[in-house]
Amino acid sequence: MARADVPTTMYGAETVAILGLGLVGGSIARDLSALGYHVLAYDRDAATLDAACAAGVVDERLDASFTRLGGAEIVIIAVPVSSLRDVLAAARLYVANARLIMDVGSTKRSAIAAAESVGLGDRFVGSHPMAGGHRSGWPASRRGLFAGGTVYLCPTKTTRGDSLELACQIWSRLEANPHEIDAETHDRRVAYASHLPQAASTALALTLAEAGVTRQELGPGGHDVTRLAGSSVEMWTAIALDNSDALVPAVTALESRLAQLRRAIERSDREALRDLFGASRAWADKNDL
Amino acid sequence: MARADVPTTMYGAETVAILGLGLVGGSIARDLSALGYHVLAYDRDAATLDAACAAGVVDERLDASFTRLGGAEIVIIAVPVSSLRDVLAAARLYVANARLIMDVGSTKRSAIAAAESVGLGDRFVGSHPMAGGHRSGWPASRRGLFAGGTVYLCPTKTTRGDSLELACQIWSRLEANPHEIDAETHDRRVAYASHLPQAASTALALTLAEAGVTRQELGPGGHDVTRLAGSSVEMWTAIALDNSDALVPAVTALESRLAQLRRAIERSDREALRDLFGASRAWADKNDL
Repeated sequence: MARADVPTTMYGAETVAILGLGLVGGSIARDLSALGYHVLAYDRDAATLDAACAAGVVDERLDASFTRLGGAEIVIIAVPVSSLRDVLAAARLYVANARLIMDVGSTKRSAIAAAESVGLGDRFVGSHPMAGGHRSGWPASRRGLFAGGTVYLCPTKTTRGDSLELACQIWSRLEANPHEIDAETHDRRVAYASHLPQAASTALALTLAEAGVTRQELGPGGHDVTRLAGSSVEMWTAIALDNSDALVPAVTALESRLAQLRRAIERSDREALRDLFGASRAWADKNDL
Repeated sequence: MARADVPTTMYGAETVAILGLGLVGGSIARDLSALGYHVLAYDRDAATLDAACAAGVVDERLDASFTRLGGAEIVIIAVPVSSLRDVLAAARLYVANARLIMDVGSTKRSAIAAAESVGLGDRFVGSHPMAGGHRSGWPASRRGLFAGGTVYLCPTKTTRGDSLELACQIWSRLEANPHEIDAETHDRRVAYASHLPQAASTALALTLAEAGVTRQELGPGGHDVTRLAGSSVEMWTAIALDNSDALVPAVTALESRLAQLRRAIERSDREALRDLFGASRAWADKNDL
């Protein structure tokens, strides 16, 4: 029962398998299901899988052996970056029909290395949607999560043209803006653009906790700065470990700027403070949304 | 033309003078005007004063000499903390009829010292609404800015009971929750609850600017963390100088937590990272809004 707007194949409506139904995987499943794709899915949490089936988002459940992955032309792996290699290894034998195998994690060098190590480099594309936030898990997933956002696409050295094209198409259908980038540049860049804001918010929360200040005491601005502090512990532990070589210099740079600000306050240097707050504001104003 | 819901005096509707029509002063003016108060106002920027009069928010404009302040029972001073002393000194001779003189700045020890130094301690209440955010100035002001938020009230050693009561009433009419606190405790507490989130956001913006990362490249979480980076340069320079003794230990504590996080990343210490992200999340979850 193919719908008119869905590319059809020998299987009827195009079939996508989504492994991991957290915020990102769950939101992809919701959008693709609404677009008419046939959705197979697995999640290590049976209750999540139950909920996704009950919501009509998932058409067929997969078990951890992945033996029934064979019907999927597209396999999307949405697990913490630390689990990607294991999932790829387990799925490897059953993805013969897949034209695209894609992860959605926040680091891309290790994803590509994992795909290449299990011999899936030719059909693998690493992807990273700049979406989400502090809420995690299936309950936080929603339609339209990716609309208007950037998604980075990192091919391996051997990714086939049609696999990369399919990755672009999928993300475009989710209304994201695909942007191809090499994995090395991606990881260095998101260390600043994504992982450092998380580190800043986390460190601020730890400082406030230590000082006995609750989140309720903050004003609206303080709430904004500490929102990411509530992010997934497992996801961020894995990202910090995986992208450590890029993240350490970024955190070190933030420590330096904080120390610079603190020293200007210590010596009551009005001009230096004006320069620092001024440069910060100039940066923010350049791209105020 | 007194309205039924406004306490009337010999002047008809209760008259309030607001000196400074930025985000906070402008928002107070909008609310009190809508509640039927007769609003006198001054702003050093003539165009702002024009706009506030044209919007029907301000009934009478004051000039910088403040000679026409005499009609006001309530005088609210909403200028950067560095200007408070000068404004109080200039207004001092003309506030004979005022039952309450109140500032709205982010630091309270210096406000109280300024009021006492010009002989206005008995009718002065220092107030600090935990409202606002990164936008500043009259264009950012709006009705209902304070609704549901905390406002700290700091009396001087000699504040009269009726002046403090009037301060409570005014803020209650603005739908804020007044909370009396001594100035010393206030300043130490907001160094963490308000000034430190600002410092964190500013330092992050400076780090990203240096790395050549634009705000547009961030995801929604990164946007949250950097929103305060666009705050008023003048206001925050003044606050940082004024509350330096309380803010320096707070920034130092944040530097320590960042260094702790960075060292855990450097040595790939999964357990330590899990503990840090876990403690951060536990703090955030306790008061998730």
